[in-house]
Amino acid sequence: MSTKKVVIIYSGGMDSYTVLHLAKHEGYEVHAVSFNYGQRHSKELLYAEKVTRKFNIPHKIVDISSINQLIAGSSLTSNIDVPQGHYEEASMKQTVVPNRNMILLSLAVGYAVSIKAEAVYFGAHSGDHAIYPDCRTEFVSTMNEVCKIANYEAVEVRAPFLKSDKIEILARGLALNLDYNDTWTCYNGREKACGKCGACQERLEAFAGNNMTDPLEYE
Amino acid sequence: MSTKKVVIIYSGGMDSYTVLHLAKHEGYEVHAVSFNYGQRHSKELLYAEKVTRKFNIPHKIVDISSINQLIAGSSLTSNIDVPQGHYEEASMKQTVVPNRNMILLSLAVGYAVSIKAEAVYFGAHSGDHAIYPDCRTEFVSTMNEVCKIANYEAVEVRAPFLKSDKIEILARGLALNLDYNDTWTCYNGREKACGKCGACQERLEAFAGNNMTDPLEYE
Repeated sequence: MSTKKVVIIYSGGMDSYTVLHLAKHEGYEVHAVSFNYGQRHSKELLYAEKVTRKFNIPHKIVDISSINQLIAGSSLTSNIDVPQGHYEEASMKQTVVPNRNMILLSLAVGYAVSIKAEAVYFGAHSGDHAIYPDCRTEFVSTMNEVCKIANYEAVEVRAPFLKSDKIEILARGLALNLDYNDTWTCYNGREKACGKCGACQERLEAFAGNNMTDPLEYE
Repeated sequence: MSTKKVVIIYSGGMDSYTVLHLAKHEGYEVHAVSFNYGQRHSKELLYAEKVTRKFNIPHKIVDISSINQLIAGSSLTSNIDVPQGHYEEASMKQTVVPNRNMILLSLAVGYAVSIKAEAVYFGAHSGDHAIYPDCRTEFVSTMNEVCKIANYEAVEVRAPFLKSDKIEILARGLALNLDYNDTWTCYNGREKACGKCGACQERLEAFAGNNMTDPLEYE
């Protein structure tokens, strides 16, 4: 019997990196897809490329930055300053890209249908629930309903860390012996991670929560 | 009070042309969006451009042809011959683009969130139910569930002709005095419509069903 295929939405960050390896560990033939949607920098995508090459995982990087004609206003895709400090509602709402996950999932599901993959994995987690409506349990379960019927082939949307926080995701990855030097998290795309933006702070907290030191270099 | 905004997915064909005018007739401020997803020809898009200019409707044409790296195999986006003759299951399945409507709707909903539009209109109709799973009632109602919760702002997905056939859509448009010379339907992009592909045949049947002659020139 041939190995079953799945598609992973892989940003190059630590969550989707862990999801990628989890699906691989579960025995799936993993197909990674990364989206360039006009992020302020493409450093995460370089990490994604490096990792998929290292593990010989088929990888597509799809440039969908033309959609910025339609969706505007997030500090992740425009020139608004990236908020510093910990995730807080007022400032972190600036990082919301309208309908981001529905867009990325719909493309990944199209890919899954094309290559006859049974599921799409993505790295939504409980830490994002407060700010991002499209990382919540109801969103994922309703997307699953629609992805069952949108094509002749049902595709399952799986978010294995939907109820886990970053500390738990990292714990799972460390238990799989994953090397987090292969991941990029910082919202700024400089040589070293800034250590100050909300994304860096969450990452550092995840390592602290696991009594570990992040192998990544910081400014 | 300012006029309420809606987004219309506008291909340049007769269904979305009728939907566009219906929403306009209902008093909405209409924002049209067309997608270039690597269709075999862009003749429909030229018609869409002409119409939106004529009626002074804001119009975005978004090139998402990069997604063809992910979704392949439809005769509408590749070099497979377009099937001739009437829509029939075996041959018309070749015209299915994987997850097409979820992709287009998710982008249009992102646009709606960005410009604070209350709804996205699209031209799904009952004639497509047999072949295209993403034109069916359950698909639209489930998409509505997910579009309520995917963003801070709920966006409604409206398919006003979901239960109508082409004859009824055309009847509605003729009652609004619409000029169907402003629409393009043929799957082939030659100077005149072929009159032979499934799309042309359906169009011609719609006119016959309304005891009218299509104003468009045929080969």
